[in-house]
Amino acid sequence: MEVRGQAVRVAGHGTPEPADNQHRTYVGSIRTMSVTVSATLAMNEALAEQRRRGVPVLPTGFGEAGLPVHPTMREVLAAGSDRNAYGPVAGSHELHVAAAGYWERRGLPTDPGLVVAGPGSKPLLYSLLLSVGGDVAIASPSWVSYAAQARLAGHHPLLVPTPPAQGGIPEPDLLAAAVADARAAGRDVRAVIVTTPDNPTGTVASRETVARLSHVACELDLVIISDEIYRDLVHDPQTRVHSPAEYAPERTVVSTGLSKSLALGGWRLGVARLPDSELGRRLRADMLGVASEIWSSPAGPVQHAAAYAFAEPTDVAEYVARSRRLHGIVARAVTDRFVAAGAMVAAPQAAFYLYPDFDAWRSRLATEHGVHSGSELSQLLLHTHAMGVLPAAEFGENDTALRVRVATSMLYGDTDAQRYSALVADDPTALPWIRGHLDRLDEILADITGKPVPSGAQSSAAVCSRAG
Amino acid sequence: MEVRGQAVRVAGHGTPEPADNQHRTYVGSIRTMSVTVSATLAMNEALAEQRRRGVPVLPTGFGEAGLPVHPTMREVLAAGSDRNAYGPVAGSHELHVAAAGYWERRGLPTDPGLVVAGPGSKPLLYSLLLSVGGDVAIASPSWVSYAAQARLAGHHPLLVPTPPAQGGIPEPDLLAAAVADARAAGRDVRAVIVTTPDNPTGTVASRETVARLSHVACELDLVIISDEIYRDLVHDPQTRVHSPAEYAPERTVVSTGLSKSLALGGWRLGVARLPDSELGRRLRADMLGVASEIWSSPAGPVQHAAAYAFAEPTDVAEYVARSRRLHGIVARAVTDRFVAAGAMVAAPQAAFYLYPDFDAWRSRLATEHGVHSGSELSQLLLHTHAMGVLPAAEFGENDTALRVRVATSMLYGDTDAQRYSALVADDPTALPWIRGHLDRLDEILADITGKPVPSGAQSSAAVCSRAG
Repeated sequence: MEVRGQAVRVAGHGTPEPADNQHRTYVGSIRTMSVTVSATLAMNEALAEQRRRGVPVLPTGFGEAGLPVHPTMREVLAAGSDRNAYGPVAGSHELHVAAAGYWERRGLPTDPGLVVAGPGSKPLLYSLLLSVGGDVAIASPSWVSYAAQARLAGHHPLLVPTPPAQGGIPEPDLLAAAVADARAAGRDVRAVIVTTPDNPTGTVASRETVARLSHVACELDLVIISDEIYRDLVHDPQTRVHSPAEYAPERTVVSTGLSKSLALGGWRLGVARLPDSELGRRLRADMLGVASEIWSSPAGPVQHAAAYAFAEPTDVAEYVARSRRLHGIVARAVTDRFVAAGAMVAAPQAAFYLYPDFDAWRSRLATEHGVHSGSELSQLLLHTHAMGVLPAAEFGENDTALRVRVATSMLYGDTDAQRYSALVADDPTALPWIRGHLDRLDEILADITGKPVPSGAQSSAAVCSRAG
Repeated sequence: MEVRGQAVRVAGHGTPEPADNQHRTYVGSIRTMSVTVSATLAMNEALAEQRRRGVPVLPTGFGEAGLPVHPTMREVLAAGSDRNAYGPVAGSHELHVAAAGYWERRGLPTDPGLVVAGPGSKPLLYSLLLSVGGDVAIASPSWVSYAAQARLAGHHPLLVPTPPAQGGIPEPDLLAAAVADARAAGRDVRAVIVTTPDNPTGTVASRETVARLSHVACELDLVIISDEIYRDLVHDPQTRVHSPAEYAPERTVVSTGLSKSLALGGWRLGVARLPDSELGRRLRADMLGVASEIWSSPAGPVQHAAAYAFAEPTDVAEYVARSRRLHGIVARAVTDRFVAAGAMVAAPQAAFYLYPDFDAWRSRLATEHGVHSGSELSQLLLHTHAMGVLPAAEFGENDTALRVRVATSMLYGDTDAQRYSALVADDPTALPWIRGHLDRLDEILADITGKPVPSGAQSSAAVCSRAG
């Protein structure tokens, strides 16, 4: 019921409640923190129930790369199955060297000794937030776990809007103002998280924006945490992803993992690149202290396979190139449907997400469907149309926004055979099961908007920018 | 540099420091929490350096089951290598059913829907402590991560001594008094952790002690967290392990994993059994909320292999029986050396630990070696004798105690071939590499105590009880 890229709301946090020395009655009174796994779970259960009833489901809720494991990766995992020692908390030297090479090839020279591996980039981010030890500025919208993790770590997220069509990066001037205000109010803001390429918008921030963000973070003395897990999934290989580590190398932590580019979310492997500075070494030591108490080390066989993958042999590189192409084609095809229906949506440039805005139909949605919020819109799509999406509120935006995240990577098929076909097809959108999903989307949008969608392919040129 | 069963000291915790709105200078001033990975890392590095210099090392510091992966487990992991979906946060249904069967066969009927799997039992314990949301009573001595995790979660450990020779269980009357005092002082104590069989002492608490502990926990309205990861490693298969879940089923959470009985620490797989009660269902929901934000799910291929293992097919059961026998023989042989040298030590009944007390040589250690504490004793053993042990202070005891934990499971050999030989040998202590370690131990003890140890096998009958 949960994937990276999905929404799980955490209502409580890890700080102690006020002490209470009154005697309490038995079990029923034991107070626990209120953490709920809400939106995603409810969505998954509703979709599963509809599927059981034979309703055709449009699975655009999950942020999971719906592709099979590359056969070589299966072999390498099997070869590493003798790795049963706990090993170093930070992961194996072999993996650190491979990850350092991966970053070097992307213009980020890396000391293997400053790489930390974990069971997914999610626990690495959590240990970072605990290690940084203060409030953290994040983009609005942004992946929901950033805010939830900050609260779990006992801190507060500071939500900052992004520039238009450049998701994942708090707009630098707004960031400066928000941090100044928060500090004036006594808050201890110590870090900023950026996501490039972005989830939920699928956009890639420009060089200028990344540079300005980095400059502002320096001025504000903020640690920059740059989540670059979608870096290799830019649709156009010519699109350059810029990292704050290029502009503020002394204070930028970069994270990535195998979950997206190799569709290995279920294998749980992430890596973090700590800055080559006193800060970086201190954060690394603190992260390892946290990691040693929470997860010990990533699974040994998976580390072995990850070392192979990060060295980027030809077969792995080809798989990533193929999946990048597929993600791009399908994400653009889905975006075209929304554009044709009249939605505002930033053209996705990476990953398998888009973030359309239904504001144009606000009054129709209210009068025809009783929908006044993004949450209500998601519920309408879920219960009336068996379409899974996550509303803007799950990404830290106000629920009045009629925006939803549409994930396109589960449209590739229900079986590994279908998914392989999608991966190698010249035109995956011509495959009957993907075509069927696109047609179904047209029908749903026609029903929501009240105007029939013109059939046939749409032009990406019609895509508009969305104000952040 | 870290294993479950090893010591990592955490100096800070996850709660926010006081807000500070003064502007700070650049990177150097970013304050991070102080978490250090200290004793174990230092020990490992010193031992590695000695090994490089050709010094014969006595590796009794690590709590890792030093055995090879069972070949069938390697095959099952390979067969599960297609599992790349994130899957449910709690783990797969297949794994829940297998774990429920495992507990049923041990007298604990289990609803598969109340099983939660994680990447090791360590993260499960952490998520439990966050979910319980208050201070926690733990045994002194006990596995160091309990206290460290409580602090990371923003709470405080309450250390309670154990009954003599019954490690892992806070003495029930002392627990009642300590919790009453703590509550009177305004502390919000909500849980007690027990370990049976125990690390660091290798002992197994009696039925009466477990029943009394359960009764007191009920009276105090405490959640009981029962870490039973060593349950299948009792040396004598007739030794019955009693769980608080038998006596306080409505409030007891049981955890276990593959790390010890199958020597799969590096695969990272643990399971928790939540009580079938309102409390259990609330804790489960809270744990999943935490888990979804910190680690998502255990690695899919490992879950697949774990489902196989928890079903306990004949080959797995035979491996566990073999390893239990080996652990018992070697732990007893090592214990015999300490007893012959005159140390006080509770006879280990399970796992691969003993916890000898050098108090008899306190004055000699002070005058001859300048040793006045358990830490100094560990340092003497490490630097003078290349023997790794962890001092009592790492398990929450006062450093004045001249007790150390000796782990015996890394004595089985340096290669898989040696370890297999140990597993199948009628008398593993006759294997030259194990015999060599035992002889080396005799020499070290002779040097420490100043009296030559009689050569030849010692009688276990000489083992004394240690006051808790």
